[in-house]
Amino acid sequence: MQVSRRGVVDPFIVMDVMEAARAAEAAGRHIIHMEVGQPGTGAPAPAAQALAQAMQTGPLGYTVALGLPELRAGIAALYRRWYGVDLNPERVVVTAGSSAAFLLAFTALFEAGNRVALGEPGYPSYRQILRALSLTPVGIPSSAANRLQPVPADLDGVEMQGLIVASPGNPSGTMLDRAALSALIGHCAARGISFVSDEIYHGLHYGDRAVSALEITDDCYVINSFSKYFSMTGWRIGWMVVPEDHVRVVERLAQNMFICPPHASQIAALAALDCIDALEANRAVYAENRRLMLEGLPKAGFTRFAPPDGAFYVYADVSDLTDDSLRFASEILEGAGVAVTPGLDFDPARGAQTLRFSYARATADIVEGLARLQRFMATRAKA
Amino acid sequence: MQVSRRGVVDPFIVMDVMEAARAAEAAGRHIIHMEVGQPGTGAPAPAAQALAQAMQTGPLGYTVALGLPELRAGIAALYRRWYGVDLNPERVVVTAGSSAAFLLAFTALFEAGNRVALGEPGYPSYRQILRALSLTPVGIPSSAANRLQPVPADLDGVEMQGLIVASPGNPSGTMLDRAALSALIGHCAARGISFVSDEIYHGLHYGDRAVSALEITDDCYVINSFSKYFSMTGWRIGWMVVPEDHVRVVERLAQNMFICPPHASQIAALAALDCIDALEANRAVYAENRRLMLEGLPKAGFTRFAPPDGAFYVYADVSDLTDDSLRFASEILEGAGVAVTPGLDFDPARGAQTLRFSYARATADIVEGLARLQRFMATRAKA
Repeated sequence: MQVSRRGVVDPFIVMDVMEAARAAEAAGRHIIHMEVGQPGTGAPAPAAQALAQAMQTGPLGYTVALGLPELRAGIAALYRRWYGVDLNPERVVVTAGSSAAFLLAFTALFEAGNRVALGEPGYPSYRQILRALSLTPVGIPSSAANRLQPVPADLDGVEMQGLIVASPGNPSGTMLDRAALSALIGHCAARGISFVSDEIYHGLHYGDRAVSALEITDDCYVINSFSKYFSMTGWRIGWMVVPEDHVRVVERLAQNMFICPPHASQIAALAALDCIDALEANRAVYAENRRLMLEGLPKAGFTRFAPPDGAFYVYADVSDLTDDSLRFASEILEGAGVAVTPGLDFDPARGAQTLRFSYARATADIVEGLARLQRFMATRAKA
Repeated sequence: MQVSRRGVVDPFIVMDVMEAARAAEAAGRHIIHMEVGQPGTGAPAPAAQALAQAMQTGPLGYTVALGLPELRAGIAALYRRWYGVDLNPERVVVTAGSSAAFLLAFTALFEAGNRVALGEPGYPSYRQILRALSLTPVGIPSSAANRLQPVPADLDGVEMQGLIVASPGNPSGTMLDRAALSALIGHCAARGISFVSDEIYHGLHYGDRAVSALEITDDCYVINSFSKYFSMTGWRIGWMVVPEDHVRVVERLAQNMFICPPHASQIAALAALDCIDALEANRAVYAENRRLMLEGLPKAGFTRFAPPDGAFYVYADVSDLTDDSLRFASEILEGAGVAVTPGLDFDPARGAQTLRFSYARATADIVEGLARLQRFMATRAKA
């Protein structure tokens, strides 16, 4: 049997870094993990307790495809709490992580061969999921002047049937403010371009809160997840908000493509919605980590980055230090014992001159990682 | 925003039946559920215990995309236990249910526009998932003489790039024996047709065990799940076995499309693999239910069906009783208080004259359901 052309997607370059880090650890070395894109914390304790109790109560059979009604209502209520938006719970589609939401959104909105634009740098899986669904990803290089987010001028004259944006972005952590997001939404609405807003890092902000596309328009798909703010990566639970007249279509797709999101994860997620204190405590850790990064990275010689508005990453231009970020990341792992991510996964064009530093882990790790980076880079400068 | 053409998939007709049953129950009526396709039992107790313990031990973060190595090894060992097949655990891909396995298999194997054949009657979601992925489902009507399974003669001259078969089948419960499965595999191999074997009901047999495609060839995709035999529907955990030279491709697709299967479900599934006594006790219940069905359905006037070899369904030809199975199912719900599934979801062409009866629930329900069916049909015959 042959593999299809669309099935052949690019490897993640970060996997090589993670494998090298794993091998170093297996050989007895202590490694600081600034390459990982997930919290070091687990689900809030009441989430696990709710599930433990549910498991004793009865079988966890299929739920309806759109998710437990009480979870959909809880997510709708979050839009009031976070944004002051009145959201009809019927528009909330619970999904097996944002991954399943992308699969649903892209099949519901686009025909094979359609062109879907995404900002570069950006989340690498957009591109690969689009390809697997026989869609054409269209990379839109964003500029440092626009804090690595696309603006309408970047889209002018580019043929596309869809646009996906992320605010806060991965790897940059930069946000689209209300004006910038409105401008993109207006550009798309005027041209019949479907607009998908990836809001997976909402809740994790260090100044102004992030603006949801739903504050601006109902004519969009909004994708979010319990993975980041709610600290539930491995649970594979997220959601999508769709226009009212798309709900039935997405429901039928979800029934067939997924049957339902994991029941256990839905129960845990429902409980997590109420764990505000624990989740805000996590955010305080990220805020302190970010402060340390903004102070410590320049001391190590990493000076060219936009301070992140949210998420838990710093994306640095290292063109003054290398034009081979993969090799540079290997050197840093070898020389400093710190795993970082070369930019190539996020930006095939310019990622050879960028690095992503994650500050998702414990503060002690950040302190130690920064010290190691400073020592290593001081030695390297002398060499 | 517009919905895509490929996003518009057919509704499940069974949903209307389930909604009518729900409404009847809400109005205070007692309904026997012979329409559901899932066990009434939950995950084996040690599965829940293993998860409860794991939740106290540490965060359930992302796993690697192909699944926990110990779970992949455990699944490989199942192939030795069940079939005497020596399976390299590297070929096992843990998935978010068989649903995710279908998405991975179809994107890894087929280009947009490819034609993929499936037997009719069959699992309705094959058709809808294929459409959502811009593939063309090709229905192959199977005959009662072949116990509702396709044979090579049915495929002759039909253009297709892939074939998916299920043994035991849903809705029929009939199996392909080694000779029948070998004939189909040989037909496909000779013509360059990719072969996908859906083995989700394996473990649930009432005479000879089911034969796995892996006993015959390594050049196929085999899809299975913890939903049925292991009684873990809502956990959304399953697996796929792929040829060795497809593993890296499927791994990259899985990394991008799913990140990983639900971690909690992987832990529960690993424990479930060892719960042989509890699972065999479930099977004994199905065997008794099946015996009651084979005895009781004919007494109610449902005489035209192949005795199921496996799964937990009886699929009856009711052409002597109706040519509108949806309406007939409504009458049975109304008149007998028993929910059954019209065949239309499984066979668009001939399903107006078939019904599926599930015997997945408790034996007392089967006894009561059969008594109700007999009373109702006796009254109907007089009318």
